[in-house]
Amino acid sequence: MRETDYSLSPIGLLHSPLKELGEAPNQGRAVAAGLEGIAVGDELIVITWLHQAQRDILKTHPRNDETVPLAGVFATRSPDRPNPLGLHQVTVLSIDGKRLHVGPIEAIDGTPVVDIKPVLLQSANA
Amino acid sequence: MRETDYSLSPIGLLHSPLKELGEAPNQGRAVAAGLEGIAVGDELIVITWLHQAQRDILKTHPRNDETVPLAGVFATRSPDRPNPLGLHQVTVLSIDGKRLHVGPIEAIDGTPVVDIKPVLLQSANA
Repeated sequence: MRETDYSLSPIGLLHSPLKELGEAPNQGRAVAAGLEGIAVGDELIVITWLHQAQRDILKTHPRNDETVPLAGVFATRSPDRPNPLGLHQVTVLSIDGKRLHVGPIEAIDGTPVVDIKPVLLQSANA
Repeated sequence: MRETDYSLSPIGLLHSPLKELGEAPNQGRAVAAGLEGIAVGDELIVITWLHQAQRDILKTHPRNDETVPLAGVFATRSPDRPNPLGLHQVTVLSIDGKRLHVGPIEAIDGTPVVDIKPVLLQSANA
């Protein structure tokens, strides 16, 4: 595999409990143009960086239920995984400049957002 | 925003046209335990790093159709975006050791895989 830089740059932060995607202090302004075309009512997939996750965990009890046998993290939605990306399907509730108010979403306040995509009916690709 | 390392480590590579998720030379063996519990027929979301994407593009013509007005990349599924993550919903066709054969998926041969998650019926979180 060739050497590549796989470094993510946050495009915003999640603000909870207001469930608001605000810009990141540094990069937010730079990428605001990327939001153009997003409208109230749109269904989006927000991709977050689960910054409090443990990256060295490969097996976990699904749903944190210790009575359920251990499973590989890729067979679960556990935040603990080698690359702690979170996928959150949300609806745009309102738009305030560069801030999107979305819901429902369960994430820790200050969780970095790394990408936003529209939901496709046949979400096969990219 | 606190300083954090948002570096992804590929967990595998996509091999096309066989649509096979093979391990990455270095990290693949290390994370194989994370696949335990994945079974033939499972619906998965494969998250890729779209390594040939342009990261400095913020507006694009949806579906590469220049007759469609420019839209912000976050309102499209364009691979060109600040953090070029791809989402691919696939079915597990067969499993051969640490290789998952999946489909359908459209991606360039050698595309790095950074995460795999089960599809949830109500895919609200993480």
